[in-house]
Amino acid sequence: MLGQKRIRDYGIKVGRIETGPRNSITDIEGVKVGHVTINSDQVRTGVTAVIPHEGNTFLEKVSASCHVINGFGKSAGLVQIEELGTLETPLILTNTFSVGTSINALLRYMFGRNPDIGASTGTVNPVIMECNDGFLNDIRGLHVKEEHILKALEDSELDFLEGSVGGGTGMSCYQLKGGIGTSSRKINLDRDVPGYTLGVLVQSNFGKFRDLTVNGRRPSPELIELAVVEESSRNPGSIIVIIATDLPLSERQLKRVCRRASVGISRTGSYMENGSGEIALAFTTHGRIPHYRQSCVIERKVLHEDLMDRVFEASVEAVEEAILNSMICADPVTGREGNSRTSLKQWIHRFL
Amino acid sequence: MLGQKRIRDYGIKVGRIETGPRNSITDIEGVKVGHVTINSDQVRTGVTAVIPHEGNTFLEKVSASCHVINGFGKSAGLVQIEELGTLETPLILTNTFSVGTSINALLRYMFGRNPDIGASTGTVNPVIMECNDGFLNDIRGLHVKEEHILKALEDSELDFLEGSVGGGTGMSCYQLKGGIGTSSRKINLDRDVPGYTLGVLVQSNFGKFRDLTVNGRRPSPELIELAVVEESSRNPGSIIVIIATDLPLSERQLKRVCRRASVGISRTGSYMENGSGEIALAFTTHGRIPHYRQSCVIERKVLHEDLMDRVFEASVEAVEEAILNSMICADPVTGREGNSRTSLKQWIHRFL
Amino acid sequence: MLGQKRIRDYGIKVGRIETGPRNSITDIEGVKVGHVTINSDQVRTGVTAVIPHEGNTFLEKVSASCHVINGFGKSAGLVQIEELGTLETPLILTNTFSVGTSINALLRYMFGRNPDIGASTGTVNPVIMECNDGFLNDIRGLHVKEEHILKALEDSELDFLEGSVGGGTGMSCYQLKGGIGTSSRKINLDRDVPGYTLGVLVQSNFGKFRDLTVNGRRPSPELIELAVVEESSRNPGSIIVIIATDLPLSERQLKRVCRRASVGISRTGSYMENGSGEIALAFTTHGRIPHYRQSCVIERKVLHEDLMDRVFEASVEAVEEAILNSMICADPVTGREGNSRTSLKQWIHRFL
Amino acid sequence: MLGQKRIRDYGIKVGRIETGPRNSITDIEGVKVGHVTINSDQVRTGVTAVIPHEGNTFLEKVSASCHVINGFGKSAGLVQIEELGTLETPLILTNTFSVGTSINALLRYMFGRNPDIGASTGTVNPVIMECNDGFLNDIRGLHVKEEHILKALEDSELDFLEGSVGGGTGMSCYQLKGGIGTSSRKINLDRDVPGYTLGVLVQSNFGKFRDLTVNGRRPSPELIELAVVEESSRNPGSIIVIIATDLPLSERQLKRVCRRASVGISRTGSYMENGSGEIALAFTTHGRIPHYRQSCVIERKVLHEDLMDRVFEASVEAVEEAILNSMICADPVTGREGNSRTSLKQWIHRFL
Repeated sequence: MLGQKRIRDYGIKVGRIETGPRNSITDIEGVKVGHVTINSDQVRTGVTAVIPHEGNTFLEKVSASCHVINGFGKSAGLVQIEELGTLETPLILTNTFSVGTSINALLRYMFGRNPDIGASTGTVNPVIMECNDGFLNDIRGLHVKEEHILKALEDSELDFLEGSVGGGTGMSCYQLKGGIGTSSRKINLDRDVPGYTLGVLVQSNFGKFRDLTVNGRRPSPELIELAVVEESSRNPGSIIVIIATDLPLSERQLKRVCRRASVGISRTGSYMENGSGEIALAFTTHGRIPHYRQSCVIERKVLHEDLMDRVFEASVEAVEEAILNSMICADPVTGREGNSRTSLKQWIHRFL
Repeated sequence: MLGQKRIRDYGIKVGRIETGPRNSITDIEGVKVGHVTINSDQVRTGVTAVIPHEGNTFLEKVSASCHVINGFGKSAGLVQIEELGTLETPLILTNTFSVGTSINALLRYMFGRNPDIGASTGTVNPVIMECNDGFLNDIRGLHVKEEHILKALEDSELDFLEGSVGGGTGMSCYQLKGGIGTSSRKINLDRDVPGYTLGVLVQSNFGKFRDLTVNGRRPSPELIELAVVEESSRNPGSIIVIIATDLPLSERQLKRVCRRASVGISRTGSYMENGSGEIALAFTTHGRIPHYRQSCVIERKVLHEDLMDRVFEASVEAVEEAILNSMICADPVTGREGNSRTSLKQWIHRFL
Repeated sequence: MLGQKRIRDYGIKVGRIETGPRNSITDIEGVKVGHVTINSDQVRTGVTAVIPHEGNTFLEKVSASCHVINGFGKSAGLVQIEELGTLETPLILTNTFSVGTSINALLRYMFGRNPDIGASTGTVNPVIMECNDGFLNDIRGLHVKEEHILKALEDSELDFLEGSVGGGTGMSCYQLKGGIGTSSRKINLDRDVPGYTLGVLVQSNFGKFRDLTVNGRRPSPELIELAVVEESSRNPGSIIVIIATDLPLSERQLKRVCRRASVGISRTGSYMENGSGEIALAFTTHGRIPHYRQSCVIERKVLHEDLMDRVFEASVEAVEEAILNSMICADPVTGREGNSRTSLKQWIHRFL
Repeated sequence: MLGQKRIRDYGIKVGRIETGPRNSITDIEGVKVGHVTINSDQVRTGVTAVIPHEGNTFLEKVSASCHVINGFGKSAGLVQIEELGTLETPLILTNTFSVGTSINALLRYMFGRNPDIGASTGTVNPVIMECNDGFLNDIRGLHVKEEHILKALEDSELDFLEGSVGGGTGMSCYQLKGGIGTSSRKINLDRDVPGYTLGVLVQSNFGKFRDLTVNGRRPSPELIELAVVEESSRNPGSIIVIIATDLPLSERQLKRVCRRASVGISRTGSYMENGSGEIALAFTTHGRIPHYRQSCVIERKVLHEDLMDRVFEASVEAVEEAILNSMICADPVTGREGNSRTSLKQWIHRFL
């Protein structure tokens, strides 16, 4: 976004379903995204914040679910989402070793808005998701500070950059430059029912170039030779998939949607490598859950299960396109110890 | 029930919460239970059917969830309940080797009521739960026939026998006679809200006598010597716990309730033995889910999570009492190869 | 096999890794496959049996794990595999409504070989996996009888047919004819270590033609128009994936392998439709687990986790190829109520 | 320990199985425990570290598994344990809002010992477990600093205090003072096999006094009146259970052991309250897993499943006794805003 050339701008149209107006997770009303990018020589890292809605997320929680595709990862906060089916904080995406600092910052952010947390009511569950950017970034340096997380939260907006930015600054994808990408799909259930939207945001950091599949096309042997400048001896992969929607979905249905993230990932060519922590989290802004009980029983709406295929297909398309956007919007980067990644921009003509 | 002396009739009051009018799973409106008992010399087995509601369960499904406490068991139908959160057939409880015949019988029962199944719509998911009654019963003889299952379904009613009856005919519990037991609890949320009920039915077949705990009391060493007539070299245990309610609970909440079944079981003394397949299934009659979509979106009610403790406590008490009822209502039985079990009735005075 | 033209015979080479000698699940020593096909007018169904090893599977169990990709299915026996990590019977693949009869037949088969089951030792866990063949088959007719299952078990061999045969007789895949398919991959860990093999067998019954992807190629709009003779109003999908290997893998590692089945499925184009019960089961013939304890402690070998990527990649390739084999080996079929499916054979030239 | 009067010193003998020499988790060779206690007026909190073995836990990982009994909790690191079956750091137990700081400190501790982490090899998975001590402690003050965690790690030893100490400093249990407790059991498999040991450490912070069950005895109504000085409007419970053993157990078997923790908890009277995050983690020091592959295949030993009952029973007894030790060793505490908890010491004579 913001003037960046995205995958559709290269004539590559992923899937059949119409996108939302921004083709972004921020097409879901209330959702905003903020980045802080930390960029200096050996340091290539940052923070991306996803705000579920504009109100107080602790007082008005959203229904959520998550699914661990491959659990070689260190995300925090998933256990409680699984048990209670609610998300009560913004989401922070960052590097693996910044989870602790992000928890602390997000706690302070929540404390500031909620004097009751840990005082007159229970605690709060910060949700932090991560990938290992140690190939391009001095990850041992713990360069993400609490102020970075707070700034990402404050700077969140509807239009945001993709590629080597925020939590995606130091990420690699298919041995090219990865990062943050987004996409969305409209979901029209019926003539009588207003349209819904489903949006995806990814932090991509996985895969080998030889497996990369761009809308069905794989690289030729010559291109593989050409493009893979550096073979990382280790392939510290991962991908975080955030799915937001305004559809009336139960936690069980949101989990089913999360499971389809792996199809979108597979369509880009990868096979869930051993070292690739792959985690999907979905939430719906439909029907908030109040922290303080106003009544014994909450009214909810849920989609008839027969209609889930439309949601599944939308989420698969949006995940695939968000990954491609995360790569095509990224500039080439040279980082820690001279390690470097080229950009899909440089090679995309070979896939057309 | 039906004139049987139950655990409360011995002055043993389990827990704090008021029971429903029958102190039975049939206190939930619409729920009915039917037994067929097969009793002859080497054959001590049978079938118990639990009907979730009086309508067509395929056309009007109930929300359901299950939890595998210890998966050394052969129950059928749980995978789909986990995925879709619905129960669409009555439940059959029987012996381990009668699962196949029960599936076939339940299919025919469902076919009879639904000409569309497998013809103009999809298939149906029969749910069968089992314990191994091979100590008292010639389980290899496969004595349960399809007509037994159909008869149990047809004979279901509000008042039913407990103990050595139906699926519980050949079961052993704490090395005494086990079987079918039930109990219920009222759940009053608020003055303004009508009362709800939670009921439990168990098929009990687990544990060692030395561990038996009756409302907090364990047997003395002398009693252990006296009561354990035969030490089964193997202890083929299991317990099936069915929880029914009319509370507005989501599938996630129903799963949380299922998890508390293990507390009720623990209170009777056992520790989930290796060979004891322990499975809980919960459903709510509140808010049916139509098979054929009438609208895109279904209106649901769910309990505020803050109130779950009342439901948890009720389910723990009802599970504990249902197990004790399954034992105290059972008569002593001698079965296969002269194997025999005494009844808790004979020893209960030692626990008072 | 057996003279059938498989996907490689059309010049389509799936993946990079060398296949086993038969390119079949029977490349794993001891594994055999048997079919019974029931084929007459309205009846298009059958049974496929997979024998894990030539010995007594109850006395010498194999390590196993399973993974529910999408739980809209009625397979039996998975709960115990998850808990105990062992498979103790052959596997039966058939139609959804033949699970009960298959359990009964497999019990009798096991009783015949093991007089101790249910008599002097515990019970046995029959594993039955299913898809809904109701589009082409009169599935309500319950045409699979116990003798069919027993015959499939007895007729198992190293070379077997693929396509519309056995459990795959009535199955549809991508709105073409589906069925049974197989493939295998060699896994060479090290020069000093003997080679291992991983084999896959699928029963395929899922997907829409417009999504079909043959080694990266999707159908043109014209082809979609041409090939989809009948649009099934419902799409009762499913796929069963059986993975066998002789690699030293723990149950946890086998589960990780099962999870990658979804990548292989995704590569053929589908997105885990709502109604598609997708289940993977993996076992290793390496290191049998004795039913009767000969010593307190069992010696095991497990692969170093670093090497799992080779296993994952092999399993993804073999799943993709097995699905394509299940389709390309199938002949066109007209079945129940004149419903028909064309074969991929008829259209494969459009994907080359 | 260290001169404290433990539950056995009051004549209360939990269970049947012989304890290890210290009746402590440190009876497992190599396991050590360290505390840092932060105690001043409004601040009642701290850190407890559990060291799995004396070597480098990153280079020589231990097999591990975990089980979420009730997921209303914020522990970190469980996702990777579930996926990979290994623990590669010491364990930190602390308050809910100190998870972030503990992650950071544990990272620095691991960096100091392993220059390769995040540089020439992958990352590391810090495991932090927590309960909410906000009733007695100013938990919003984030009083645990990185140096506290590092000191707890450095100060770990074989003999350590129980009760209001380390991570247990501000914890409440059954509305009395809770904290850290430990216990162990010997496991003799066979005459020919050397003895094994299983040890438990808990951080207890759950339950209502009226439910407290001390070796089978519940409080009288009068005692309930007397003992419950302050009714916390909220009951922010939780319990962390760490199980260590030298038995040869697979990850799957360790998970089965974790599941039995809930039985031990239930025996003390509680029923897994909604707000009580209850998590068990088990590891075995038997058979280390090398980070760097020295060979393709690792030799492992696993217990025959038939013998698991001894392990289950030992773990149930040790969990029950560890909880009682955590309470009986604790002194009464007055903390934040004058909130106070009496000690079980004061009431134990009423349970004898």
